[in-house]
Amino acid sequence: MAKRSFPLSKVYILLESGPVVMVATAWASKMNVMPMSWHTMMEFKPPLIGFVMSDQNYSFGPLTATKECVINIPTIKIAEEVVSCGNVSGARINKFEKFHLTPKPAAKVKAPLIDECYANLECRVADKSMVEKYCFFVVEVVKAWIDPAVKDPLTIHHMGKEDFMIAGKTIKIKPKMN
Amino acid sequence: MAKRSFPLSKVYILLESGPVVMVATAWASKMNVMPMSWHTMMEFKPPLIGFVMSDQNYSFGPLTATKECVINIPTIKIAEEVVSCGNVSGARINKFEKFHLTPKPAAKVKAPLIDECYANLECRVADKSMVEKYCFFVVEVVKAWIDPAVKDPLTIHHMGKEDFMIAGKTIKIKPKMN
Repeated sequence: MAKRSFPLSKVYILLESGPVVMVATAWASKMNVMPMSWHTMMEFKPPLIGFVMSDQNYSFGPLTATKECVINIPTIKIAEEVVSCGNVSGARINKFEKFHLTPKPAAKVKAPLIDECYANLECRVADKSMVEKYCFFVVEVVKAWIDPAVKDPLTIHHMGKEDFMIAGKTIKIKPKMN
Repeated sequence: MAKRSFPLSKVYILLESGPVVMVATAWASKMNVMPMSWHTMMEFKPPLIGFVMSDQNYSFGPLTATKECVINIPTIKIAEEVVSCGNVSGARINKFEKFHLTPKPAAKVKAPLIDECYANLECRVADKSMVEKYCFFVVEVVKAWIDPAVKDPLTIHHMGKEDFMIAGKTIKIKPKMN
């Protein structure tokens, strides 16, 4: 996909609707990726994102050690790959090879962009104070990319187990006047 | 709406797809409500939710003082009311009256359930350690309610400014076998 740079001030638009994202890490030349739904915006400027990554996940080690990751936003096109990535551990296999995902170099971090995802957020860990208690990381988005060809991304939204809500249409809702 | 009790172990299903929610508070017999999108699940058992509420919001005072709130989940049916509630301050008006929202008594907290919302989560503040730095509250869901008549809730998902994505269809996505 031909990506263009996306303004950091608009990153919240990509995330606050709650899409499943894929967190990519790289550590000692080994890359990994895992799906995640427990994330929230925390600040507009600089854009801060908070998310929970269990210390039972293989990615927890690389994220903690390198303090870098890329939050990639997939669409229905690779939904099976997303779910599959959550079903196996990066400790045992190379998920990029197994699920035919294409890593591309990021601009500011060593973790890879996933080419098949329509948006990619390069992140650095900004606050680890809630990691011990909740496995909750606060990261700063330092560079964002988007595929301008994707107008209404059919993001997937987890509803428990194998159930996913696919993004419906986007409408304008205005406040009532009176 | 005729609500039934909803298992706390399944609360995550209601929230992780990223719906706009309405946070209700009650303080000294004054009720208020505001929409919010910056929330995430943080733990399954007990269900913990983290969310950002700016200290510029009127609700920040009541939430901090009472350590209680109800997270109500609306659908497209009251989308205009939801947006309107985010456009005015509870310091000046009674939003329940102005926007014809019906407060109902909760079982475990003083903040009200919003009857027009298909699900309601009664919450108590569990951790304030990130409030000063990020206005980030961690709350525990102590009681949950749902309208069993609502099968595929058309939740609304904020995409910035006046843009909202309406929940599309829910499908099963299974991992690839091989």
